[in-house]
Amino acid sequence: MSDLSSADSVGLVIPETYRHQQPFALQCGETLEGFELVYETYGELNDQASNAVLVCHALSGHHHAAGFHEAAESRPGWWDSCIGPGKPIDTRRFYVVSLNNLGGCHGSTGPRSINPTAGTPFGPEFPLVTVSDWVRSQRLLADHLGIQQFAAVIGGSLGGMQAMQWAIDFPDRLRAAVLIASAAKLSAQNIAFNEIARQAILTDPEYHHGKYREHGVNPDIGLMLARMLGHVTYLSDDGMRQKFGRELKSGDLSLGLDVEFQVESYLHHQGRSFSKQFDANTYLLMTRALDYFDPARPYEDDLVVALSNALCKFCVISFTTDWRFSVKRSKEIVDALVEAGKNVASAVIESDHGHDSFLLPISRYFKVLSTYMNRLHREAGGAC
Amino acid sequence: MSDLSSADSVGLVIPETYRHQQPFALQCGETLEGFELVYETYGELNDQASNAVLVCHALSGHHHAAGFHEAAESRPGWWDSCIGPGKPIDTRRFYVVSLNNLGGCHGSTGPRSINPTAGTPFGPEFPLVTVSDWVRSQRLLADHLGIQQFAAVIGGSLGGMQAMQWAIDFPDRLRAAVLIASAAKLSAQNIAFNEIARQAILTDPEYHHGKYREHGVNPDIGLMLARMLGHVTYLSDDGMRQKFGRELKSGDLSLGLDVEFQVESYLHHQGRSFSKQFDANTYLLMTRALDYFDPARPYEDDLVVALSNALCKFCVISFTTDWRFSVKRSKEIVDALVEAGKNVASAVIESDHGHDSFLLPISRYFKVLSTYMNRLHREAGGAC
Repeated sequence: MSDLSSADSVGLVIPETYRHQQPFALQCGETLEGFELVYETYGELNDQASNAVLVCHALSGHHHAAGFHEAAESRPGWWDSCIGPGKPIDTRRFYVVSLNNLGGCHGSTGPRSINPTAGTPFGPEFPLVTVSDWVRSQRLLADHLGIQQFAAVIGGSLGGMQAMQWAIDFPDRLRAAVLIASAAKLSAQNIAFNEIARQAILTDPEYHHGKYREHGVNPDIGLMLARMLGHVTYLSDDGMRQKFGRELKSGDLSLGLDVEFQVESYLHHQGRSFSKQFDANTYLLMTRALDYFDPARPYEDDLVVALSNALCKFCVISFTTDWRFSVKRSKEIVDALVEAGKNVASAVIESDHGHDSFLLPISRYFKVLSTYMNRLHREAGGAC
Repeated sequence: MSDLSSADSVGLVIPETYRHQQPFALQCGETLEGFELVYETYGELNDQASNAVLVCHALSGHHHAAGFHEAAESRPGWWDSCIGPGKPIDTRRFYVVSLNNLGGCHGSTGPRSINPTAGTPFGPEFPLVTVSDWVRSQRLLADHLGIQQFAAVIGGSLGGMQAMQWAIDFPDRLRAAVLIASAAKLSAQNIAFNEIARQAILTDPEYHHGKYREHGVNPDIGLMLARMLGHVTYLSDDGMRQKFGRELKSGDLSLGLDVEFQVESYLHHQGRSFSKQFDANTYLLMTRALDYFDPARPYEDDLVVALSNALCKFCVISFTTDWRFSVKRSKEIVDALVEAGKNVASAVIESDHGHDSFLLPISRYFKVLSTYMNRLHREAGGAC
């Protein structure tokens, strides 16, 4: 991994805040009086403002995608392996924008923010946001930054859904959409896993109908269970077998109910650290945004018709062992794009790491992405 | 489905109880002063006692596999489609024994039973039981019933593991082992799902360290979450898509946090009804028995060596969309049996119903099973 001073790191980064001070009507029917989006940028916007790339985050992501907030930070941003000088999203060529979505818990307006009409935090009253709402708020951020057209909108998982929605809702505002480990809508199984995670939070006695902060507590256990479950669905059976197998925590069987296998210990750790970092109301919102995403729905469930408005080109990437958003789900998108007569490149990447693959520096994946990004750069008149 | 008076039903059934009044040492090191096993039988034991079939149940199963306990019972036993006159396990030919395992919550000695040394229910103090312990207790039941050798020991999922353990531990006590939708050991992913289910129960404030009955409560929510999760892993992605798709509960989107999709409503119902029927301490025990099952472990992790002691023939059946115990896991068993020089028949059945397939009357599955059982009957000198 890169460190602060390495030549391929974007180095120290200072988040900024965009303040939208007009009413913002949401798809659910409610209106926010205004909102803030916290974001970071890496690289330089060129004179024509033609080299901007928007990175959209997934379920538990945020704006801090690359570089370091301070020299002492132990780990760089969540996609640092992909964004930086000489990396697939090359900051010598592209001006990268990464934000925390509306409803998030990392600085953008969300459940932890003060509701101006009440004078207290929104908490569970924060309205439901959809992928369309996010894309509209991201467009306002683009306007603010002077970006009339993105060279690309890129995202993995829920981030890929935002890229797809951009192509449908604002066809003239992007030249390419890169959809990684994504799907055109959730399956019943996907929704079921989300619902179990939500129920774990909602039934935690510390949840207090979402008013946990007022009670001075946090639904740690619900969040822990939700994250443990999510985490298992991000990994593959094979990947887990390689990583943990049936390794015992203590080296010998104790034949009891305590933690016995390494995989249990690992999941406990993941669950506990997540519950300290993430807001429960945000988790509920984000999973609902996932469930509701269905861009074909307004077009009589015809994805081909939904995508026919798009003007950009597409790159669709999936991973062999991803069973949360499988190769098949990406193929559905590719097939619809082909039928809609769009320019689409696609790649299926061999990987043992399941859905998590989209976050990992897998050699062929990064080569495909680099090549695609370089092509976009050349087509925009950039020097090689 | 059959009803009480139909020609292919075993009709009214009265459970019986086997009382073992000697100390019974468990693999974990603890000893039960004695135990009871509740069981049912269907069909007649022949004079040579050569036509007995043992049916072993899975995680949440019990002794009531076929027929009705009373005329008013709304549903027959859990494998009624498979056991009865003219059915794959034909009670005109075979004498079928089905029991509730030790540690269960349907009548056999388990956490709800009185601990004779304490005078109060075992609750969380009920010792850990393993598949080997179950098989040894089942052997005692066989002795009691005068069955020196089973024509077959049959089970699906955790039941198949018991059949495999029988073949290894008591090779001369069975002529065939039928392993359906099973595995030679759990994968890290399997263990992870079990652990999340256990954590849901253990962290439920109503669990009270397993003393929920003394507190006059029940960890309903933990059991509900555990069952919801288990249930999703028993179904296939494709099967859920066919059954629920993205059908809405109310017909139109409400864009909120309430139950919105049919699949959510279905899982809530499954979870709630399970939590009313099943004992939490038993659930913890049964999942641990699953995790610990690893018959190759005493043989330096070599399944071929473990199975080399077996004298019976084997039938191994798996289902294409089962991702809990996939076709690959059954193939591992078949390969080891072939390498160990055993007589093994195997079939991979096309089915959309995931792991649950083993409980369903799927035409080719039942044909394979019928054919295999008829062969066993013929080989034992039975008339066709």
